[in-house]
Order: sequence, then C-alpha cells, then structure tokens
Amino acid sequence: MKALGPIPAGYGGIDGILAVGGRPVTHWAEEAGATPLFLYDADLIRRRVTQLRSAIPDRVALHYAVKANPFPPLLALMAGLVDGFDIASGGELEIVRDAGLPLREVSFAGPGKRDAELEAAIRSGVTLNLESEGEAARAFAIGDRLGIVPRLAIRVNPDFDLKGSGMKMGGGAKPFGVDAERVPALVREVVASGAEWRGFHIFAGSQALDAEAIAETQGQALELAARLAEESKTVLPHCNLGGGLGIPYFPGDTPLDLPLLGERLAARLEGLPDVLRGAQFCIELGRYLVGEAGVYIARIVDRKISHGEVFLVTDGGLHHQLAASGNFGTVVRRNYPSAIATRFGAEVEEEASIVGCLCTPLDKLADKGGFPRADVGDLIAVFCAGAYGASASPASFLGQGPAKEMLV
Amino acid sequence: MKALGPIPAGYGGIDGILAVGGRPVTHWAEEAGATPLFLYDADLIRRRVTQLRSAIPDRVALHYAVKANPFPPLLALMAGLVDGFDIASGGELEIVRDAGLPLREVSFAGPGKRDAELEAAIRSGVTLNLESEGEAARAFAIGDRLGIVPRLAIRVNPDFDLKGSGMKMGGGAKPFGVDAERVPALVREVVASGAEWRGFHIFAGSQALDAEAIAETQGQALELAARLAEESKTVLPHCNLGGGLGIPYFPGDTPLDLPLLGERLAARLEGLPDVLRGAQFCIELGRYLVGEAGVYIARIVDRKISHGEVFLVTDGGLHHQLAASGNFGTVVRRNYPSAIATRFGAEVEEEASIVGCLCTPLDKLADKGGFPRADVGDLIAVFCAGAYGASASPASFLGQGPAKEMLV
Repeated sequence: MKALGPIPAGYGGIDGILAVGGRPVTHWAEEAGATPLFLYDADLIRRRVTQLRSAIPDRVALHYAVKANPFPPLLALMAGLVDGFDIASGGELEIVRDAGLPLREVSFAGPGKRDAELEAAIRSGVTLNLESEGEAARAFAIGDRLGIVPRLAIRVNPDFDLKGSGMKMGGGAKPFGVDAERVPALVREVVASGAEWRGFHIFAGSQALDAEAIAETQGQALELAARLAEESKTVLPHCNLGGGLGIPYFPGDTPLDLPLLGERLAARLEGLPDVLRGAQFCIELGRYLVGEAGVYIARIVDRKISHGEVFLVTDGGLHHQLAASGNFGTVVRRNYPSAIATRFGAEVEEEASIVGCLCTPLDKLADKGGFPRADVGDLIAVFCAGAYGASASPASFLGQGPAKEMLV
Repeated sequence: MKALGPIPAGYGGIDGILAVGGRPVTHWAEEAGATPLFLYDADLIRRRVTQLRSAIPDRVALHYAVKANPFPPLLALMAGLVDGFDIASGGELEIVRDAGLPLREVSFAGPGKRDAELEAAIRSGVTLNLESEGEAARAFAIGDRLGIVPRLAIRVNPDFDLKGSGMKMGGGAKPFGVDAERVPALVREVVASGAEWRGFHIFAGSQALDAEAIAETQGQALELAARLAEESKTVLPHCNLGGGLGIPYFPGDTPLDLPLLGERLAARLEGLPDVLRGAQFCIELGRYLVGEAGVYIARIVDRKISHGEVFLVTDGGLHHQLAASGNFGTVVRRNYPSAIATRFGAEVEEEASIVGCLCTPLDKLADKGGFPRADVGDLIAVFCAGAYGASASPASFLGQGPAKEMLV
C-alpha cells in the first residue's frame, strides 16, 4: 500500500460524506448536474487570508497570482480579500478586466510578452514587470506612440534561489527577469524615459514548506533590492518579494510555519536600510491562498479487478488534474491526498488505485492507496485541487472537455 | 550543447525558410494572421499511408486513432485514406459524427465509459470495445432498453507487453480491458446476450521503434486471440491488433523498419490457426500516421542573455506542446527535433534554449541546442507535432488559449 498525501485541515464529513462549503459533496454534484467537478470553499480561502494577515506585517501588501486559479467567481471573492493581482498574459488581463478588478493594482510578469500585450497593459494602467532590456525598449516605444506614461517595474533575476522549493525561479541563467548586475543601468533608463518607475519584482522560487528557507530568501531579496536601488541611485517605490509559500501535497509534507515566517519578515523590515525605508512591499501568492480550498470530485463508473489489483475507474482524470497524475513538474510520481468522498472517514478496507477515464496508463489519480471499499456510483475526492488544476490541465484531451467549477 | 531529436524525413527549405505543404512557413503564418500555429502536411500523411499500405498485408485494415489528432479537416482527409476510426470518449464520437465519418467503421475503447456514452455509441452503431464485465452488463441493459442490438467486442488485457514501448498497455494489472483468463466466459455472455459479436481488441503498448519487438507482440496477440477464441468456442469475426508503431522523437532514435514489420506480419498471417482463418484484422494507428506530418511554429519575441546563456523567448510554449516540454509521460527531459524555421538549414552558430512565454521554468521547447543565430521576429519550429500536441496540452494555462491549426 502506498501512502496518500495529507488531507488539508478544515475538511470533515456530514453523515459519512465529505463536506465542502458546509454541505455534502453529493449535494453539490446534484446541483451541478454532472461529475466531475471542482469545488472551491470560499470560507477556507477567507480563513487562509485571515491567517496570513495576522501573521505577516501590516506593511506588506497581499497580492493574488491569477495564474493559480482564474475562475471568475473566485477572482470576485479575492477582490474583497487581497490588495492587488498579478497576471501573466494578455488573456489574464482580459480575465481581471472582465472581473471588474482595479487595474491599477495589477502587475504583469511573463517572459514572452507580445507587443499587443504590452500595449493592452499600458492602456489599462497595469504595471509591467519588465523581463529584459528589449522588452523595456518596446514598452518605451509603445508608451510614446500611445501618449501614455507606462508604469514600469523591473523583474530581477536574483543570484540566489529558494532552497527546497518545488520550482526554482532564480540562481543562475534563467529566461525570467534581468540579471542583477544589469539592473541598475536599466533602472536609470526607465527613469530617464519618463515612465512611472514602479520598483522591483524578485521571485526566487515557489512551493517551499520550510519557513526559515523562505525567510532567508526574503532577506536576500531585501538585501538585493537595497543594493540595486543604491547602485541605481533611485528611490525604490515598490518591491514585490514574490511568493514561495507552499502547501503539503505528498506523504510526509507538513504545513508551513506561518507565524514563524511572519516573525522573521517583521524582523527584517525593522532593520531596513535607508534606501528601502519608503518602499511599499508586497508578497504575491497563488497556490498558498487557494490550493487547499479546492477539491476535485469524480464518480466511480467501474470497479475492476485485474491480476488481483483493484481499480476504481472514474469519470474524471488527468485532463482536469494533470499535476495530481504526476505529469506536471514532478519527476517521481507520488500520491496527492485523496479519499472516497461518499465514505469519508470510514476505515481502510482495501488497497485500490483511482484512475481516470482516459485510455492511457498516465491517467492515475491515486496509486495503490488504502481506502474503504468503494463501488460504482461512489464519489472520489482529490484534495489540493484549488490551484493549477482546472486551468493547468489538458481539458480537451481525448474529447473530454472541461469540468464544471463551483465556488461554494 | 545538447543534441536535438532528428528532423523527420520530407522537410526542406525554400530560400532558407522551412517549407510545409510546399510553401514557406512564413506564408502560412501570414495567412493565419497570428503565431503560434500548428501546420499539418496533408501530403506527408498521404505518403505515410501509402508506405503502410505497401508494407502491410492487404488483409489487415488500417484504422486511425482519433485521439492522436482530432482536428476536423485532418479527420476529413483521413476518411479517404483509412478503413476505420477508433475513438476514446463520447466527445470523440461527436467529433467523428460531425466529420461525417462512417460510424459503422468506428470502435470505441476507454476504461471509464459513462452510461450516456454507451447509449450514444449503441444508437450510432459504433462497436464498443468492452473494458470489463460490469461495462458489458451495462451495455446489454442499455441495448435492451433501446431495442437496439449492440455491436460488442472485448478488449483483452494481454499477459504480455510491447518491449521497448513508450507506454505499456499490458503485461500485468491494468485498468484496461479484461484479464485474458476471464475473457472466454465474457465472450459466451456477449454471444448469449444476442449482441452482435465483434471480436477482440488487443493493445499491448505504444511508441515502439523496434520492428522485431512489434512483430513479436503482434504474433503474441494472434496466439492469444486464437487461444481465447478456441476456449470461447466461437468464431472470431474481427481482431484489432492495436498499434505500437512509434516515431523518432529524441537524439539517437531511428525510424521503424516498416518493410520488415510488414514481412513479419505477412508470415504470421500465412500460418494462422483454423480458428482465425475467417477473421478480419486491423491495426490502429495514431501517432505513426500523423505525428511526423505536424510542425509547431512560434515566433521569437525576445532574445535574452542570462549569465552568458542565450534564451530565445517565443510566443508559444508548453500550453500547446506539453510533451515537447518534457512534462507528459517522460521521466528525463530530452529535446524534440526543433529548428529556426526562418534560417532553415543554416549552420549552427550558437547554443541557445528555446523557451515559451509562460512564467514557469517548465516551459522549455529546446534545451541548450545548437542553432543558427536567431533574433526577435524569427520563427522557430518544433517537429513531431502532429500527434498529441494541440489536444494533449493545457491550452488555457495562464490565460493563453489554443493555437491555430491548419491542414496544408
């Protein structure tokens, strides 16, 4: 039997059925009229933001990275909870515009911005996190042509990475941002261009569970920002310290020590050098805000025995849950947290694999986990489905199409 | 410098620009009005089918697996080239119906068929490849309710796998098909139910480049089919021998020896046991028919140097080319064949990485390959993009949306 990842805090059962948003998932499946579906628990998102606000110094603003989950009702919820939004494409700009979010509190990072995307951002008053000198030159030219002063920050490719992070964004040659040593010259160019100078974006990695490692990286980012501001001989108006706060997905993972991280960050901000005293700071979080609030629900359509092994074949699969299937950014497949949602909390009775409906051996949601005995018609749940789930999976694969999503 | 995969046969340049369908890709990019785009070369598909027809015995029908590429104009082309189609979902049934394909030459395999999908298939006269006894019972009941005789084959989980295949579909506990030893009992049930008995579907693996290994697997499939037909005491009307024919993707891969495979299969068919003499045979191919005929084209929007390394940042990425980025079914990332399309055939001048526009380090299309010097505005090409590209990638990720596709 292989271990399953830990079910996030805040979930319980009602009459033996997993509840999300205060109701059993069978209720939501009936309301949706179909499975599979994604359920996002609004209350868990609110609680997470409250925890963050109480741990992190007031001076640090909280941004939401839209890429984690762009579902419009969820964005509308976030609008009342966070201080700004970060987008990664012209498509996401349209999404936040359609959601009625305040565009002056939006910043746009991404290494391959087309001219049309730069133009749309400049017209909207969105802050561009410049990824290169070439992109800066294009932004200057487009601002001139439009007669609009662009709002420009510089994304710095830091010379350090986030230790233990699932995805490293710094510490060597990268397609993201401008190498630190070339940043001061570009700052001077931005200022000289007459653009609105918006400061730095420093992102060193994501999905780390070690608070000390994240705190160390935040400290390095502050030192780097101070050094680059001094070398640029400019005042730093704003500094986006990135994210990096991870959630437990796999067996053995433990939640981040958020109070410790908050203490460390508060201490760093106490001792800021002069050049950073007047700066505004933000952290940019996606997965940490919404990941654990999402549950993916699918229905068992077949129970099969092959060579003595049990397969629970569902109507869901990797076309909605690519990362949970082990096919996105992981080398060794490990089990996400999952459960038989209609027998929630019941004792383990057998070893079974939960698979999807796709005709490929890659389509596995739980490999040889321990579950109560489940049968055709039962619902299964995959947890940690709130971020990089629906939008980061190949929904059209094998003609399946997207799953329904509900904020509850 | 890391090696690139081999560019498939049949591609050349016109005035130094990669040509597809007899025209430079710049022509198609202009006609499409945007990049990125997928180009599928109809002539290369025709040629591949001709090669196959001349190598494989006439007795063996040729089926196209829609999952490899369901682009409607490509399906329309295939309709004139192959003898049947294989689908994997109710969604693909709608696609082949919309394409006007002959539904009686369609078979439907997939481990998680919902009742609604079984019903749609039975109404359409599609052959169902039954994946389990439970699915068989549901199909019988739906046929009875509709008053339609269902057309039923049994997918066999073979007790062997395809050696050297990229994806194993047999040889142990699997969610696909019925374990061989339980097949005779199910055959008798199918026949007794009054359904139209359509035979076996035996699929042992995919993406193999060794003709001898595929031939051996085909031989094992024929032996298994004979044994199961004898044990079932029924005549076998049809047997789908699966696919498994691979294409070279990575450095060192060499094309399949198709004439050898054809010879081996012909010899096997000469010596068939009595119980298989009257059976129709087919092979079911997806990737082998269309994979090498597709090219993914993206435009360079930035040329960046970071710590001395060159990054060609494009407007494409893993949202269209998940497998090429190394994130789908591969453990170790290796380079697909790729090129600077607007400097096709020019000498290697530098080491560069081709990356996508997504804000993630996973978004890499070529890692430290050798290329002629390219700049902003140049087009890049990723080859082997005709199968499991557009439809098997997370097109909505980061708000990007799908790429245009063209059959040329």
